[in-house]
Amino acid sequence: MTLAIIPVHGLPEIRPRDDLVGLLLDALARANERLQDGDVLVVAQKVVSKSEGRVVRLADVTPGERALAMAEESGKDPRQLEVVLSETKEIVRWERGVLISETRHGFICANAGVDRSNAGAPDTVVLLPIDPDASAARIRDEIADRAHAMVAVVITDTFGRAWREGHTNVAIGIAGLAPLKRYIGQRDPAGYELRVTEIAVADEIAAGSELVMGKLDRCPVAIVRGLPFDVSEETAQEYVRPAARDLFR
Amino acid sequence: MTLAIIPVHGLPEIRPRDDLVGLLLDALARANERLQDGDVLVVAQKVVSKSEGRVVRLADVTPGERALAMAEESGKDPRQLEVVLSETKEIVRWERGVLISETRHGFICANAGVDRSNAGAPDTVVLLPIDPDASAARIRDEIADRAHAMVAVVITDTFGRAWREGHTNVAIGIAGLAPLKRYIGQRDPAGYELRVTEIAVADEIAAGSELVMGKLDRCPVAIVRGLPFDVSEETAQEYVRPAARDLFR
Repeated sequence: MTLAIIPVHGLPEIRPRDDLVGLLLDALARANERLQDGDVLVVAQKVVSKSEGRVVRLADVTPGERALAMAEESGKDPRQLEVVLSETKEIVRWERGVLISETRHGFICANAGVDRSNAGAPDTVVLLPIDPDASAARIRDEIADRAHAMVAVVITDTFGRAWREGHTNVAIGIAGLAPLKRYIGQRDPAGYELRVTEIAVADEIAAGSELVMGKLDRCPVAIVRGLPFDVSEETAQEYVRPAARDLFR
Repeated sequence: MTLAIIPVHGLPEIRPRDDLVGLLLDALARANERLQDGDVLVVAQKVVSKSEGRVVRLADVTPGERALAMAEESGKDPRQLEVVLSETKEIVRWERGVLISETRHGFICANAGVDRSNAGAPDTVVLLPIDPDASAARIRDEIADRAHAMVAVVITDTFGRAWREGHTNVAIGIAGLAPLKRYIGQRDPAGYELRVTEIAVADEIAAGSELVMGKLDRCPVAIVRGLPFDVSEETAQEYVRPAARDLFR
C-alpha cells in the first residue's frame, strides 16, 4: 500500500500557552484536510516546546562558573551554555567546541536539544519538552476529543549521529504507536531466524516526514497516512539504550 | 506537496548475474506502475548484492586463526566471522559478541554489513556491494536507457546506531541526488543563522521507504514520488565522517 506523507502548512508562529491542537486543526481545515483514524500525526518538537512555554530569554540567564569556563574555552555564549548544562544529565563529549549531552530523558544529542534557531525571537532558546511522551499523549487525546480521530502522535527533533555526517529527524515523543517492529524469532523465506532486527518505526516516520517539513518554511507538522502500525502504550523511552549496554559512550 | 512512497511488489528471488533492472521493470509493468522523471528509486542492498554475485557459501570458507579465536570467544560461526573480517577495514568494537566494523567504504556497522538473513539459500551470507555508489549509478543509467526516466537511485541497508535501540534503513549508495541539504548560512524567520544543520536527505529517504518495504514480504524496492531534490554527482561517501573528525570511535 502506498504511504502518503502530507505536509500541513499555515500554522502561525507558536507562543507560550497557545492552543497548539486548536491551531493545528484550524490549519488543517483551511487546507481542506482532516485527520483520519490510523493517521500518524508528526509534530516538530519546537512548536510543542513553545506551546508549553519551554522557551528561555538569554537576557534572563546568569551563567555559572562552569558555563563561563566552557564559554572561555569555546567562544560560545555562556548564557546559552548555562541553559544547556541545566538540561544535561551527563556530558558525553566536550571536544573542539562540540557538546554532546545525555538529556534527562536519556537522549544523546548536541547541546541537550537546546536550540537558538526558529525560536521565534532573537536571543531566545527553545528547550526540549519536559516529557515529550506525555506531550504526544496529550496531543493524541485532544485530537480524539476534538477531531474524533484516533491517531498516533510522533514528536520529532533533528539529531546528529555518530560516524555519519548529516542530521536526521528522530522521534523524541511517541503516543499510540509501537516504537519497535520486532522481527526477532521470525524466519526469512529460507528459514533463517532473524535474530537481532528491531526496526525503529517512529524514528523512520520522523525521518521520512522531515522530507516534507523543512526548516525554513514553517511547516512543523505532517500527516503520515496509509501506514499499518501496532497501537501500543510504549513510548520513545524504548529507544533509550541503557548506558550499561552502550558500546559508544 | 504530498510525498508518496510506493512499494514495488512481485520481484522474484534475485540470483547472481540476474538482470535486476529488467526484473524490476517487469514487476513495475505487472503492477501498472511506471517510473517518472524525478522519482527516487529505493533499492535494498540485498538484491543489488545478489545480482552482483556478492554471495558466499559458508561451506567454501576456511576460517583463519583470528576468526577461530573470535568464534571460540563468542560462540559464533567461524566461517561467517572469516567473511566479516575479510570485509572489515578496521574493527571499531568487539565486545560481548558484538562486532562493529568499519567497512572498506567507510561505513560503521555491525558485521561489516555481512548478513545471513534473506540470503536466498541456507548457510549463505550476502556481502555489501563492492561499490554501492557505482551500483546506484549503473541502475540509474539503465533506467534512463530502458525506461526513459531520469530518476535518482538510493541503495539502502539496515544499520544499528549508537545510543538508540532499534535499527533504521540508511543510504549506502546514491546516484543523482544531493545527499546533504545544507542550511548552513541560511537564516530562520527571526534572522538567526542556522550554523550547523545539514540534513541527510538520502538517509531520510531510506528510513521512510523502509516503512513500506518490510523484511519478510519480499518487497526490496520502493518509489518515492513528489520529493523536490537537487540533482548532484555527490555520493553516499558524503556521509562518511573522517575518523579524525569523529568523537565516537
